[in-house]
Amino acid sequence: MTTQEIAEQFAALCKAGRFEEAGERFWAEDVVSIEPMAGDMAVLKGKAAVQGKGAWWYANHDIHATETEGPYVNGDQFALRFLIDVTPKASGQRMQMEEVGLYTVQAGKVVEEKFYFRGS
Amino acid sequence: MTTQEIAEQFAALCKAGRFEEAGERFWAEDVVSIEPMAGDMAVLKGKAAVQGKGAWWYANHDIHATETEGPYVNGDQFALRFLIDVTPKASGQRMQMEEVGLYTVQAGKVVEEKFYFRGS
Repeated sequence: MTTQEIAEQFAALCKAGRFEEAGERFWAEDVVSIEPMAGDMAVLKGKAAVQGKGAWWYANHDIHATETEGPYVNGDQFALRFLIDVTPKASGQRMQMEEVGLYTVQAGKVVEEKFYFRGS
Repeated sequence: MTTQEIAEQFAALCKAGRFEEAGERFWAEDVVSIEPMAGDMAVLKGKAAVQGKGAWWYANHDIHATETEGPYVNGDQFALRFLIDVTPKASGQRMQMEEVGLYTVQAGKVVEEKFYFRGS
């Protein structure tokens, strides 16, 4: 599959709310995930670690709605924009998150995902 | 200025339709601009070359409206999403373009801009 085809399939799963399935299907075993934050989850390496982050996220957030726009493609990379209407269970404060995910593809798999957040 | 501050100022100029001014102010002298296409404009190096691409773009397109969303920040990079309602003069066919721009900042200047396009 071309990067464009992978991007389209990945985006279609996200648009259907099937984020975990998108990762399951397309993450490389040695995928690296980079978040714009300090701390334990800033850089995660390996599919198991990234799946663990997903499990943490879903266990600690009530997700009311998501919207995925894209994919936007250049060479071996594609970007998606996400809108997430979510209530973190810790705060109980509903918020609207906006972020961009940038995915790098090698040999048909996502080897890096990097997230960019909308600051206040 | 931090990357967040540069990102906010760059985005504010784009939101006001002042794209050329954003570049003028923040492009490094040796900025590299990467488009998702083959041909002469795929990779341009240096502020003068990138300004030339802008001049070509404005001379050959009627821009009806633009919308800029973001910035989305991670470390030394920020992303913007653009919606462009445009008629290329060559075709006369009005179209709506969607793209993401990813900007890398060093020493207060944009040293790389890379664009990702929404495929059909």
